[in-house]
Amino acid sequence: MEHDHHDNIQRLKIVEGHIRGIQRMLENDQYCIDIIRQIHAVQAALNKISANLLDGHLNSCLLSAIQGEDPLERTRVLKEITEVFETANKV
Amino acid sequence: MEHDHHDNIQRLKIVEGHIRGIQRMLENDQYCIDIIRQIHAVQAALNKISANLLDGHLNSCLLSAIQGEDPLERTRVLKEITEVFETANKV
Amino acid sequence: MEHDHHDNIQRLKIVEGHIRGIQRMLENDQYCIDIIRQIHAVQAALNKISANLLDGHLNSCLLSAIQGEDPLERTRVLKEITEVFETANKV
Amino acid sequence: MEHDHHDNIQRLKIVEGHIRGIQRMLENDQYCIDIIRQIHAVQAALNKISANLLDGHLNSCLLSAIQGEDPLERTRVLKEITEVFETANKV
Repeated sequence: MEHDHHDNIQRLKIVEGHIRGIQRMLENDQYCIDIIRQIHAVQAALNKISANLLDGHLNSCLLSAIQGEDPLERTRVLKEITEVFETANKV
Repeated sequence: MEHDHHDNIQRLKIVEGHIRGIQRMLENDQYCIDIIRQIHAVQAALNKISANLLDGHLNSCLLSAIQGEDPLERTRVLKEITEVFETANKV
Repeated sequence: MEHDHHDNIQRLKIVEGHIRGIQRMLENDQYCIDIIRQIHAVQAALNKISANLLDGHLNSCLLSAIQGEDPLERTRVLKEITEVFETANKV
Repeated sequence: MEHDHHDNIQRLKIVEGHIRGIQRMLENDQYCIDIIRQIHAVQAALNKISANLLDGHLNSCLLSAIQGEDPLERTRVLKEITEVFETANKV
């Protein structure tokens, strides 16, 4: 692997277990507000994972693109970062 | 069940599959920006589920609490809604 | 006034001053990341104000609507709360 | 100016006017949900401005830092971007 994703994969496995736990809360008709709070906890965990991924991306692909020879590739990579930043504000 | 959570459970199963797909993307060292976009898609799906849950909650527990006799219970239920609204702004 | 909005109006005046400060940062070509951080601070202040407003709304209009005679009005008021909750997740 | 911030300053002036409009809505005790919707509109406008600023930053300071000689400066600039991305998820 170019990136060491071990930590993020572990975090996603925890998120997956969390999602199954929320399914059981729904099946057992638990209190809706408690379920919403659990969904918010999952969202916070996903935010952390996407920030880790961006950090890895900036320190590898972005560096390569900027130090590389291809101006179109550089433009593309910079534009993508603005796009995910803008989407991050909206989800 | 007091609430019909069938639809939300189905949505969560889809989210769970989506999370496993993202794990595979990491294992296969796919492009980080594409992985972040998938995480954003999962977060949008979770937002929809929490909005559905709040809708069900308002039309059942909240109604009961407000039409009930217990002022403390009413205060508690209203306060919880403000709290999840405030957290929704932050995740 | 039905609601006491004194506190929220004061908070909005502070936000307004903050926005003017950010304009000056731009005019003086200050460091972009510092400006983005100030925008994030404004957004956190706005989140607090919208949570305060929702709290006041739940304890007045929502209570009246639910305790009132008009089922359509009740449905409308509950639906609006779900809508602003869903939008809160997205801005 | 290193950056052309004309467009963003204009956007911030519009936001400032919007904030004053929201103050008047509060002074006139207008419907809380409508006020919350206006706050959400301001948040969306601020998201757009911070995305514009990040875009400018990536195409100037970040490029200079990465193409420059100083590895600490490069690390610092990359870290800041991850930080504002992570905060963007939370406000």
